[in-house]
Amino acid sequence: MDLTALEALVRARRDADPDQSYVARLRARGIRRIAQKVGEEAVETAIAAASGDRDGMVGEVADLIFHLAVLLDAHDLSFSQVMDELARREGVSGLDEKAARRS
Amino acid sequence: MDLTALEALVRARRDADPDQSYVARLRARGIRRIAQKVGEEAVETAIAAASGDRDGMVGEVADLIFHLAVLLDAHDLSFSQVMDELARREGVSGLDEKAARRS
Amino acid sequence: MDLTALEALVRARRDADPDQSYVARLRARGIRRIAQKVGEEAVETAIAAASGDRDGMVGEVADLIFHLAVLLDAHDLSFSQVMDELARREGVSGLDEKAARRS
Amino acid sequence: MDLTALEALVRARRDADPDQSYVARLRARGIRRIAQKVGEEAVETAIAAASGDRDGMVGEVADLIFHLAVLLDAHDLSFSQVMDELARREGVSGLDEKAARRS
Repeated sequence: MDLTALEALVRARRDADPDQSYVARLRARGIRRIAQKVGEEAVETAIAAASGDRDGMVGEVADLIFHLAVLLDAHDLSFSQVMDELARREGVSGLDEKAARRS
Repeated sequence: MDLTALEALVRARRDADPDQSYVARLRARGIRRIAQKVGEEAVETAIAAASGDRDGMVGEVADLIFHLAVLLDAHDLSFSQVMDELARREGVSGLDEKAARRS
Repeated sequence: MDLTALEALVRARRDADPDQSYVARLRARGIRRIAQKVGEEAVETAIAAASGDRDGMVGEVADLIFHLAVLLDAHDLSFSQVMDELARREGVSGLDEKAARRS
Repeated sequence: MDLTALEALVRARRDADPDQSYVARLRARGIRRIAQKVGEEAVETAIAAASGDRDGMVGEVADLIFHLAVLLDAHDLSFSQVMDELARREGVSGLDEKAARRS
C-alpha cells in the first residue's frame, strides 16, 4: 500500500455506514477528535521509540499515518501536497539533496 | 518526492557534516530528542487543524513526516514496513477495503 | 482540593480494587500507559486552548493534573518536589520574582 | 512555592519587559504558541517517564506546570478552578474518596 492507496481507502470509508467504518465514526465526531487522535498516536510513537520498542514502533507509526490521512482528507488536503512541500524545502538547501541523489 | 526519496535523503544527510546537516545534528542528540520532535510536530499539526489553519497544516504535516523518517531511520526501520502493516490490517477488515477498490 | 489532597487520593486509590478504581487499573497497565495518558490529556488541553474552548480547558487541565499525580506517584515522586524545583529556578532569575512578590 | 504563588509570579511576569521576561515573550507570541509549549513539555514528561529517567521527570513536570500556569492565565482561568473541578468529580465517585480521607 502507498499513500495514494491509503487516501483512496479513507475516502471510501468516510462515506460508509458509521456502524461498519471507523473512519466514518471518526469523521462524525469532528476535526477536534481527529486532531486529538493524531496527537495521541504521535505520543505513543515517541514513547515506543524512547522505550526501545522497535516492533511496537511500526504499529504506532502505522496508526499515526492512518489518522494523518483522515485528518488531511477532512481538510480536503492530500499527502501529495505535503510531499511537494518537502521537495520544495529540500530544493532550497540543495547540498544534501544532491548527496541523496548520488547515494 | 515520495517516501522512498525522503528516506534516501535522510540516509544521505545523517552521515553528512553536522555543521551542514540538520539530520546529522538531530541524530547526534539521540533517539529521545528525535522522538520528542515527532511529538512536538504532531502537537503543532493538531493545533493547526483545530484552529482551522488549513495552509499551516501542510507545513506542519511536512515537518511531522520528515521527523518520522528520521526516527524510523534511526531504528533501521522504513516506511515500507509501516505501509505493509497498514495493508495487512486493512486486509483483515475487508469490507471497507472492497469499497475502496471500487471507488 | 489542593495538590497534597490529590496525591493522598491517588495513593489510596492505587491500592484499591481495580474493579472499583480507575487509578488501580491504570497502575496495573504500567508506566507507559500512564505516560501516554499524560501526553493525551496535554494534547486535548492544547486543542481546547487553540479552539478558544475556555470551559473545556478547565476539564482538560483537571484530567492532565490528575494523570500527572498518578505518574508522579508511580515513580515515588511528589508535586512538592516539582514545586521546589520551580522555586529553585525562579530564585535564579530573581528579577521577575521580586516583581511577583510586590504584586 | 505553591500553585497560588506560581500564578502570582506568572501574572507579574506577563506585564514585564519582554526583553527580561520569558512569560511576556511567550504571551506576545499568542495562545497557539503557549498551547504548543504545554503539548511539548507533556511529550517530554512522557518520554522521561517511559525512559525511566526519574530525575529528568521532576524538571519536565516543572516545565509543564509552569506552561500550564501561563496558558490558564492567558485565558483568565486559575488552578483553583481546576482543583475545584477535580474535587467535584471525586465527590461523585465517593467510594475512593472516603478511602483517601482515611489514609
